[in-house]
Amino acid sequence: MKLASRRHGRDGSLLVVSRDGLRVASASHIAPHLQAALDDWPSVEPELRRRFEALDSGLLPGQPIAEVELSAPLPRAYEWIDGSAFINHILLVRRARGVEPPQTLRSEPLVYQGGSGCLLGPREDFSLGDAGFGLDFEAELCVVLGDTPRGTRAAEAAPYVRLLMLANDWTFRNLVSPELAKGFGFFVSKPATAFSPFAVTPDELGEAYRDGRLHLQLQTRLNGALLGDPDAGEMHFSFFDLLAHVTQTRALTAGTILGSGTVSNAEPARGVSCLAELRARELIANGCATTPFLSVGDHIEIAMYDHAGRNVFGSIDERVTA
Amino acid sequence: MKLASRRHGRDGSLLVVSRDGLRVASASHIAPHLQAALDDWPSVEPELRRRFEALDSGLLPGQPIAEVELSAPLPRAYEWIDGSAFINHILLVRRARGVEPPQTLRSEPLVYQGGSGCLLGPREDFSLGDAGFGLDFEAELCVVLGDTPRGTRAAEAAPYVRLLMLANDWTFRNLVSPELAKGFGFFVSKPATAFSPFAVTPDELGEAYRDGRLHLQLQTRLNGALLGDPDAGEMHFSFFDLLAHVTQTRALTAGTILGSGTVSNAEPARGVSCLAELRARELIANGCATTPFLSVGDHIEIAMYDHAGRNVFGSIDERVTA
Repeated sequence: MKLASRRHGRDGSLLVVSRDGLRVASASHIAPHLQAALDDWPSVEPELRRRFEALDSGLLPGQPIAEVELSAPLPRAYEWIDGSAFINHILLVRRARGVEPPQTLRSEPLVYQGGSGCLLGPREDFSLGDAGFGLDFEAELCVVLGDTPRGTRAAEAAPYVRLLMLANDWTFRNLVSPELAKGFGFFVSKPATAFSPFAVTPDELGEAYRDGRLHLQLQTRLNGALLGDPDAGEMHFSFFDLLAHVTQTRALTAGTILGSGTVSNAEPARGVSCLAELRARELIANGCATTPFLSVGDHIEIAMYDHAGRNVFGSIDERVTA
Repeated sequence: MKLASRRHGRDGSLLVVSRDGLRVASASHIAPHLQAALDDWPSVEPELRRRFEALDSGLLPGQPIAEVELSAPLPRAYEWIDGSAFINHILLVRRARGVEPPQTLRSEPLVYQGGSGCLLGPREDFSLGDAGFGLDFEAELCVVLGDTPRGTRAAEAAPYVRLLMLANDWTFRNLVSPELAKGFGFFVSKPATAFSPFAVTPDELGEAYRDGRLHLQLQTRLNGALLGDPDAGEMHFSFFDLLAHVTQTRALTAGTILGSGTVSNAEPARGVSCLAELRARELIANGCATTPFLSVGDHIEIAMYDHAGRNVFGSIDERVTA
């Protein structure tokens, strides 16, 4: 099942989306918005699925998606927890920052708590802010959770994953080092995060989703040119591992979003999902980074295609404005 | 005006509370819960104030508060951002951890993004977890914000403060050092935070609330003995300063909670608002810390009295369980 949110009020208005991503139909009579659906998922899901199948089969004609303005599936969420589950990304960006990776690099996930009160839609322009901040994107995969108890183990985690989405974790790269040096983690260096048009149930992904990882390539384009298409299945810590880590000392409420961190492969030919990695590679190869951070007018596209060639989550498609 | 939430569903049911804190009346016909009231504050506030004044004057009899089970005013919130605005606290706990305070100690606030999906009520017992985690409390003051734009300056911040509350920022002290060493800030070391029974509009505090600081003493008792009563007015960064810092690169949604960090005075006679400070003082004076962290059965009370002797926010009153 594919879900999306029409821009409406604070929480959007719930839509079902056809598998090809071309048509939508309102589902707000079943649950007014996605958060309400997640709050009551076991009782709401069967009816949502019936509506989705009616739309997908053509029984319900629906409306062309081009006529609808979409917000993020969750325009505000109770938590946005972002992991950094791709070891290659950590190694590259820490090397570029001149900081040693943590000793627990391979045994304990890195995660940070992000801001979740104002989340951006898939086509929202992003203001560059101060040019000295060094705006960068980070193409990621994420899951939306149901109510998840404290102390959930990785082996028990699968049923808590309700939905998957893509994210662009906008980052002011030049603010990261001074902020992390203060010791309390990211804050001003992480502005609002943007999400894909569609949130998709795990069953839609078939065999590509297994063991808490999604084995598909994540494509990132900058101004139309392919920058990277790494396999998201190369996650060192699976979403189940991340979930076990973050519930060690507290429970998570329905609608919590948990991110993979920047998707990154050890194989250089797979490219990058953020400019920081490209710059790190330049630094390692040539002693200096030459690719600049983003400028006004730059255009980012993030998408993931399944083995049938479908754009599973729809595209994040954003421009940098002044 | 004083507001509270009766335990009910995911968001509680909105109550008005008499100034003496003894009686409550439902206000859920005006807004079902506090988040809904904050979402629509300008239009809802006048009617809530009329209901509050009717209750406080006795025109509306209300119900004894003892008959009602309260949750946190916001049992789930879109963001919980905690500052560390009392320099004395930073100096003491960093000295105890053997870590230098940041160079920007007095010019730039320390803040971290906390988990906000599951917040605890004022009388919820807290599970000790692993005894080796070193459970500690942190008595704090916090504000609840309305919609606050990106780039709000401190001088413009006052109107965005809707409500004030107290918080107990439970901390697993022995998990802090290894977690911060990883570089991404707090996560498992900060379990769910507890809040005072009442959320109070700034006008209720009269002259004691000025320049974004509340000039009243915050009392913390451990097993009945007064541990500290520091003046919360000694905040180095005011709530307005904190708000300006945290909106530098993003907007905040209505219902965002912003905390002061552990209330702490330079004058040792004012005591402490967490055990980490007491242990830091022991370490500095005697070379070793002798006060243990919390054990099963320990009882924490946090309250703030105004100049008329009223318990403004009601008491946080919690026991540690196995």
